[in-house]
Amino acid sequence: METTLSYEQLADFTKNIFQKIGCSEEDAATATRVLLMADLRGIDSHGIARLSGYIRLWEGGRINVTPNIKIIHETPSTAVVDGDSGLGLVVAPKAMAIAIEKAQQVGTGWVSVQHSNHFGIAAAHGMMALEKNMIGIALTNASPLVAPTFSTERLLGTNPICVCIPAGKQPPFVADMATTTAANGKLEILQRKNLKAPEGWIQDKEGNVSTNPHELRAGGSLLPLGGDKDHGSHKGYALGAIVDILSAVLSGANYAAWVPPFVSFLPVAAELPGKGIGHFFGAMRIDAFRPVDDFKKHMDQWIHRFRTAATVAGQEKVLIPGDPEREMEVERRSKGIPLLKPVFEDLEYLAERFEVSLNVNQANVQRQV
Amino acid sequence: METTLSYEQLADFTKNIFQKIGCSEEDAATATRVLLMADLRGIDSHGIARLSGYIRLWEGGRINVTPNIKIIHETPSTAVVDGDSGLGLVVAPKAMAIAIEKAQQVGTGWVSVQHSNHFGIAAAHGMMALEKNMIGIALTNASPLVAPTFSTERLLGTNPICVCIPAGKQPPFVADMATTTAANGKLEILQRKNLKAPEGWIQDKEGNVSTNPHELRAGGSLLPLGGDKDHGSHKGYALGAIVDILSAVLSGANYAAWVPPFVSFLPVAAELPGKGIGHFFGAMRIDAFRPVDDFKKHMDQWIHRFRTAATVAGQEKVLIPGDPEREMEVERRSKGIPLLKPVFEDLEYLAERFEVSLNVNQANVQRQV
Repeated sequence: METTLSYEQLADFTKNIFQKIGCSEEDAATATRVLLMADLRGIDSHGIARLSGYIRLWEGGRINVTPNIKIIHETPSTAVVDGDSGLGLVVAPKAMAIAIEKAQQVGTGWVSVQHSNHFGIAAAHGMMALEKNMIGIALTNASPLVAPTFSTERLLGTNPICVCIPAGKQPPFVADMATTTAANGKLEILQRKNLKAPEGWIQDKEGNVSTNPHELRAGGSLLPLGGDKDHGSHKGYALGAIVDILSAVLSGANYAAWVPPFVSFLPVAAELPGKGIGHFFGAMRIDAFRPVDDFKKHMDQWIHRFRTAATVAGQEKVLIPGDPEREMEVERRSKGIPLLKPVFEDLEYLAERFEVSLNVNQANVQRQV
Repeated sequence: METTLSYEQLADFTKNIFQKIGCSEEDAATATRVLLMADLRGIDSHGIARLSGYIRLWEGGRINVTPNIKIIHETPSTAVVDGDSGLGLVVAPKAMAIAIEKAQQVGTGWVSVQHSNHFGIAAAHGMMALEKNMIGIALTNASPLVAPTFSTERLLGTNPICVCIPAGKQPPFVADMATTTAANGKLEILQRKNLKAPEGWIQDKEGNVSTNPHELRAGGSLLPLGGDKDHGSHKGYALGAIVDILSAVLSGANYAAWVPPFVSFLPVAAELPGKGIGHFFGAMRIDAFRPVDDFKKHMDQWIHRFRTAATVAGQEKVLIPGDPEREMEVERRSKGIPLLKPVFEDLEYLAERFEVSLNVNQANVQRQV
């Protein structure tokens, strides 16, 4: 059973909750915008479903709601930002804004972030560059769930790579992908539906191929993009490693198996090599390379060529990265955001506990099977 | 049957050939160093085996041996370089040197290149950053051989991503990977041995799964990393697309299906959107983010943690990107570079035609079955 709430309802509620735990109104608004962008774009695993998780991290003393987010090292085109244990939802947009400002000055800007927390979907930050006619890049490390090729140990997160590229008449190119075969959210869908996972997504704790979506609870791992060595998993492993190093070794955050887990019930390792989790952002001004109009004309041609390519039987069209998420956003802005029963119950619990109205009435709730 | 020549023999010969077609001594030395780095590192598909291919492109009027390689647009952290149709083996190191120089000035440097040709292995350029205590990045587009997810058309090259990261006591992290499930070189090995390819490497011209390594000659395609949608091929497609756009749409080179083919017997499309093929290079000074010694200490710890991770049964150790290639280089510098019969015959042909000695005698040739 699902409950559907409008974006505005969810945004009001979420902002109120963030303010209740002590965020400034400005930070609460930013965190809400970032968090709900996941729901709008159909990445349900990273949106409102995680609100109670952030609250539990705050309760566990792992989120600072009044962080002093500051640059601790910089050059004309780079900076390292200390997130002061703030919500990644707040730290990340500030760091991306610094990358954009540096790009305005010297052509490109690159910011590595230490001492942060989970930042929602990477595209929420990378896309900030688009309206400035810049290419935006956002990376983050994350709780260790992924075994490198040949290993049984979980040493990497799903470590996403997001690259956003503006176009002209066409909508922008927005790639935002976990460096695993399948993102954890896709596994969660199979878990709820009790369906098997395709081979190449996960392995059991001994490193055998598994199709059991619950394998991670039994010590299994997600697999790097490629799945196995024959299918290039060493490339997915290398990509996840690059994200980890740029986000954390370069900034002074924790890396590899030392990345603090998102879930509050798992302990943080005793001796940590760095601070919090790490992110990495980039902004490149298009006109630092060629005139914006020229670039956009060719980008439109690039997109058109792919979108109109011949398809294999049974497929309607070739998609451009960002297409499905953009279409989902149009739909959910008008029809609302469907919430699974346990997610809605979490919100009801938060509403009661923090005395914040969910403002649900018969007029704006649609119940569906 | 193989013939093994020493690195020095091959280098002398190759440099002589490049000078015979009109390259300056300096350019010939650079092209030789870059080309043979592939052979030293065991990427046999990209090294001396391609020398006669470069010569045929020159004969076809597609390589300018005395190019005027110049910056046509720049900011403090960026540049676009016009390769003037030079050998990519020569254009790329010059462009990478510009990226490094800009990084010395403002922390990072980013160079997009138009009007170039095949540049050998990406690592030859990305690794230039390592000795400067910088992270090096090298991307290039290439002849269209890869179908995006859901398509039957070859719209992308194997478009490699190379990221090189310095360490301290440990050797550097050097990832250099095609954004396809398997690089074309691996397919060539199967072709020569008449072995089947694993599923997920290639499709036939209708887009059906194929295990026939000769499928590309019949209109088939290589597949993006992931292989099929269920296994994340849309991510490999997005990665290949990002490489294409940064290398060519950003610089004014050709992109998508318009990238000129490496093989001289295939015609270049009549109406091109840009000039030549495109590359993209980046250099990031470590100390633009944190002190070099701190970074290297943590990078050593990162590498040590992965290298000593628990392995699945039957695997000896977890590899760090660059390990196999580095070990191969040590071996081949001491024992020589083995050449397959058709490759050696190509060199004998070039030796005769350009009146350049291959300098092969019984003392330094080892014949093997």
